[in-house]
Amino acid sequence: MAVAVVTAAAAEDLLALDRTAQDLLFRAARTANAFTDEPVDDAQVRAIHDLVRYGPTALNAQPLRVLLLRSPEARARLLPYVSAGNRDKTAMAPLVAVLAADVDWHERLPEVFPHRPGARDWFADDPAGREAQARLSAALQIGYFLVGVRAAGLAAGPMAGFDPAGVEREFFPDGRHRVLLLMNIGRPAADAWRERLPRLDYAEVVRTL
Amino acid sequence: MAVAVVTAAAAEDLLALDRTAQDLLFRAARTANAFTDEPVDDAQVRAIHDLVRYGPTALNAQPLRVLLLRSPEARARLLPYVSAGNRDKTAMAPLVAVLAADVDWHERLPEVFPHRPGARDWFADDPAGREAQARLSAALQIGYFLVGVRAAGLAAGPMAGFDPAGVEREFFPDGRHRVLLLMNIGRPAADAWRERLPRLDYAEVVRTL
Repeated sequence: MAVAVVTAAAAEDLLALDRTAQDLLFRAARTANAFTDEPVDDAQVRAIHDLVRYGPTALNAQPLRVLLLRSPEARARLLPYVSAGNRDKTAMAPLVAVLAADVDWHERLPEVFPHRPGARDWFADDPAGREAQARLSAALQIGYFLVGVRAAGLAAGPMAGFDPAGVEREFFPDGRHRVLLLMNIGRPAADAWRERLPRLDYAEVVRTL
Repeated sequence: MAVAVVTAAAAEDLLALDRTAQDLLFRAARTANAFTDEPVDDAQVRAIHDLVRYGPTALNAQPLRVLLLRSPEARARLLPYVSAGNRDKTAMAPLVAVLAADVDWHERLPEVFPHRPGARDWFADDPAGREAQARLSAALQIGYFLVGVRAAGLAAGPMAGFDPAGVEREFFPDGRHRVLLLMNIGRPAADAWRERLPRLDYAEVVRTL
């Protein structure tokens, strides 16, 4: 075990990011399952967006859309579509983010990718390709967003256990959004998590050729 | 313009993450299209993995697999499947990561999600559901990985312009991996990027109910 501790310490020192920030974003950060009553205000979410919007996406398309459920009425509309195990914490969290991908992201390319004026037309007749790209880039952006929530000193509780088609019908009747993930956001309560689950080792994840 | 500057400064101050780290990971970080000759060694990639492996995934499944192409022979096998516009920079980068999702992630659930002994069986007969979940969680992990590359003081060059089926045939003949993204990694050269592309505003991305 002494060897493992030495290895981890060495790894931390190889990074340019300081240890306090490493802990805030990854090493000490945990998925929260319970939250205090302290509210999360719009200024905090604006600060998170202002940071993570610089993360890269394919063709700079930025397909992620975030629907914040703050009012009790909005929360009540979500809960029937959330799996039983996720329902209580979603009802109690100060803020719930519905994280969706806009499959018509190509409409914005003239603004966000202006140096290729014809880019929008490449995708106009390829809804399946647009949806695949929307799901990939929006998921990258959810990764950045989760890091941003932690950068704000808040805890995130991402959840995949819900009925996406139901949430889309309820909140995105336009048909152009795919809901990828829900995320509770707030300050962790005292009993917010259990023991950390095991992570895969380097050799199980990385190969070199 | 003075108003916009004041707003950005206020957003930075609302975060717990210090400004140096904000700049390193997001505000000053850029997608690099050219790299110096300085090598990226395995110890640096180990340090990145040691940090970002703590990022959350659905059921803690951790489906991301990373294939590092370091040797000239391995690089030469990749280039025919890379789009013409990405080929030169991929040939020149010190290191190229092929980022893939393991669609048989459920096999590892007894180790990584041990408190639900039956979890593996829920997914055994649902290859389409496993692939969707693999693509989502692996893309979240690519988001964390990109942040980790920047945390190591390196520049990332993520690329979606390549032939995934070709790369899968060439490097993952087992059929259980889907290649989501390629990423060049290294120190940025002097001419590594052009002017930053526009980002969507808060009101274009976030709605509140």
